[in-house]
Amino acid sequence: MTDILALDATDLIAAVGGARLSHRAVAEAYLDHIAAREAGIGAFEFLDPGLVLSRAAALDSAGAAGPLAALPVGVKDVIDTCDMPTGYGTAAYAGTRPAWDAPCVTQCKQAGALILGKTVSTEFAMASPGKTRNPWNTAHTPGGSSSGSCAAVASGMALMGFGTQTAGSIIRPASYCGVVGYKPSFGLLEPAEIKVLAHSLDTLGLITRSVRDAALIASVLAGRPGLALNGVPGTPPRVGLFRTPPFEAAEPGTLSALEHAVARIKAAGGRVVDIDPPADFIATHDIHAAIMGWEVTRALAHERTVLWDRLTPVTRAFLAEKAQIDAPAYDAARAALPRIRAALADAMADVDVLLAPAAPGPAPEGLGATGAPVFNTPWTVLHMPALSLPAILSGGLPVGVQVIGRVGEDARTLAAAAWIEARLDAPGAAP
Amino acid sequence: MTDILALDATDLIAAVGGARLSHRAVAEAYLDHIAAREAGIGAFEFLDPGLVLSRAAALDSAGAAGPLAALPVGVKDVIDTCDMPTGYGTAAYAGTRPAWDAPCVTQCKQAGALILGKTVSTEFAMASPGKTRNPWNTAHTPGGSSSGSCAAVASGMALMGFGTQTAGSIIRPASYCGVVGYKPSFGLLEPAEIKVLAHSLDTLGLITRSVRDAALIASVLAGRPGLALNGVPGTPPRVGLFRTPPFEAAEPGTLSALEHAVARIKAAGGRVVDIDPPADFIATHDIHAAIMGWEVTRALAHERTVLWDRLTPVTRAFLAEKAQIDAPAYDAARAALPRIRAALADAMADVDVLLAPAAPGPAPEGLGATGAPVFNTPWTVLHMPALSLPAILSGGLPVGVQVIGRVGEDARTLAAAAWIEARLDAPGAAP
Repeated sequence: MTDILALDATDLIAAVGGARLSHRAVAEAYLDHIAAREAGIGAFEFLDPGLVLSRAAALDSAGAAGPLAALPVGVKDVIDTCDMPTGYGTAAYAGTRPAWDAPCVTQCKQAGALILGKTVSTEFAMASPGKTRNPWNTAHTPGGSSSGSCAAVASGMALMGFGTQTAGSIIRPASYCGVVGYKPSFGLLEPAEIKVLAHSLDTLGLITRSVRDAALIASVLAGRPGLALNGVPGTPPRVGLFRTPPFEAAEPGTLSALEHAVARIKAAGGRVVDIDPPADFIATHDIHAAIMGWEVTRALAHERTVLWDRLTPVTRAFLAEKAQIDAPAYDAARAALPRIRAALADAMADVDVLLAPAAPGPAPEGLGATGAPVFNTPWTVLHMPALSLPAILSGGLPVGVQVIGRVGEDARTLAAAAWIEARLDAPGAAP
Repeated sequence: MTDILALDATDLIAAVGGARLSHRAVAEAYLDHIAAREAGIGAFEFLDPGLVLSRAAALDSAGAAGPLAALPVGVKDVIDTCDMPTGYGTAAYAGTRPAWDAPCVTQCKQAGALILGKTVSTEFAMASPGKTRNPWNTAHTPGGSSSGSCAAVASGMALMGFGTQTAGSIIRPASYCGVVGYKPSFGLLEPAEIKVLAHSLDTLGLITRSVRDAALIASVLAGRPGLALNGVPGTPPRVGLFRTPPFEAAEPGTLSALEHAVARIKAAGGRVVDIDPPADFIATHDIHAAIMGWEVTRALAHERTVLWDRLTPVTRAFLAEKAQIDAPAYDAARAALPRIRAALADAMADVDVLLAPAAPGPAPEGLGATGAPVFNTPWTVLHMPALSLPAILSGGLPVGVQVIGRVGEDARTLAAAAWIEARLDAPGAAP
């Protein structure tokens, strides 16, 4: 009989679609595994096995299997759901019941997926950590803010988790947890009914076990069949090694991950060229800080006033610092972006994708902080599609590399990432 | 004693700030007026006089008056409020209680404004009308989707109403109701926690009695003191008369409004030059349709599936037509925008603002439809700041003209609009 938990999303959906597996069998296998693993990891904010089983039974009796048939999905708790509470990662909103499912959740349900539950987010997807631990070493952070979704996929408790990134909340925790994190081009996945932090930065994305799974699921949710991959591309991508400033923030583990990736790409016949960062690329960090600071200060007006006393000290300190940005600084930051975009386009003229750090190093020890987004914020503010691919283990913890493509070129970026992923011989699932 | 209802927002805020008027006196004057006028107009979806009076009493006892002290505000019912139900213009969500106030509502409360209630919106701010009638002639539509906010300000039941525009939902009803409608540059006013229709089009704006009121309120809400006007500018703006294609959609009333505005501007020493629309400007209509179609189809995923049978036939037909757009059409539409933006920038090189139709003509008779956004969609998709200014009466109904500025130049656009407004000698309040 099939080892259900061993199937990736692509094979599981095919098996259910081909009637070789029932939705119920998948639900039971995942609920059993969650029962065994969840206590030590704490990936879920809300989980109702009865809801999952009744949903699976309904899908089985409905007959026709959808394009995401029985896909076990974890929904980050900053995303609205009407049949499960939505707490936005904060005690101040615990138990809130939105009137609707966010579009991304409805799209999953319409496609036959199994929504398992809500996954842990830091408070308002910012800096104050939740209860989740890193499945590779529970003394270490899973990263954030998409902590629960990354830990759930890493520990086999879900095959896809929704993540959101305003600074580094998808790519960094994916690197820390040894899973694939996919931050699409800005707006590719519908962002409605997800708690707004910064309206020009917030990006909905996916946490999966493999690039082909991310591509298949994105093709269904985005309504773009061309995103799906038909096997691993034969021709190697043209890769540009981009030492994202400030590159001195890269620790030995991240340097090793990049060296490993470059060596494997070259050994497989791929071409890797060094890309000199545009002169003012370092400014993208301050630009991101100014845009996020101004926008989050305004978007969380209710929380900053009415709910202030109910927020964690970490969140209050975070918001107080963000509130220092004024309108001229915000306008100047936005005005500086086109020049940097143009310079980067020139720098990328001869490559398909960039290869860059996904995080400073492996997941830091301790659960009090979720790590630094320094290697993520530029790609968020530039709206470019990016993936974190597991590359190596460093001190027993996974370290990923980041693959970045041009805005709107998600298909090309996913294909390049799949080719690279196939060469990395990365560590598998968490122990 | 002061005729409270005769004061515009600027003077009323000054009077309350100077302790010459109490918040309670303003609340009572407006509640009395609403009691007399609301039944025949139907501008409010929700109104709780007790809530307004207790809020006013709290503001009086708090002592210090805010920058929007006692401003009587109507909040369009697609904007979240936690102390009043939010129905999004649809029976399917009637009585919904969001967990928060949208940032724009919190900003009003922090500034000392009086939130009167929720104003009527068409269903999901789209095409299916609510109960609101045009204060100038109750057999005519007030326009939509910001129907209640425009009718409330036109009939003196509020001094500011929030509006939202995804196609023509602020400028058109403002023209029909003889009030000032201000659609700021995209993103100038924080859009969070407002029902999403199209994430790259939705724009929060203001309905007021005058341009100086709109400028003052926007300066507070946007955190940009430079938007406020210090009297009417002395130097006339350089105005470009822009016959928005398809100009044949302009009816005699709109042609007269434009002629009136041009004559008054020239008589006051202003310069008006004809601007030839860029060759492909007509494409902005199809571009808007493609972008709105793709985005609204995805944003309303829950409503289009779970709630479909509870939506009005008008909304179902609207959504069914929008759903015809595919990803290639959406991508092509977005790719076409930069060229049109550049051509328009060239065409505007020698002017401060454009003068164009605000609506095809006066408000159509009947309450079954809210009129056509044909003269609004280009400026929405181009993200340019725009105002509708009352200009003339045609058949006893007001007709406005539209003043449009460059993206991000809201201060310059408001100043030019104030100069033009002062020359229009427009009809006053509704009878």
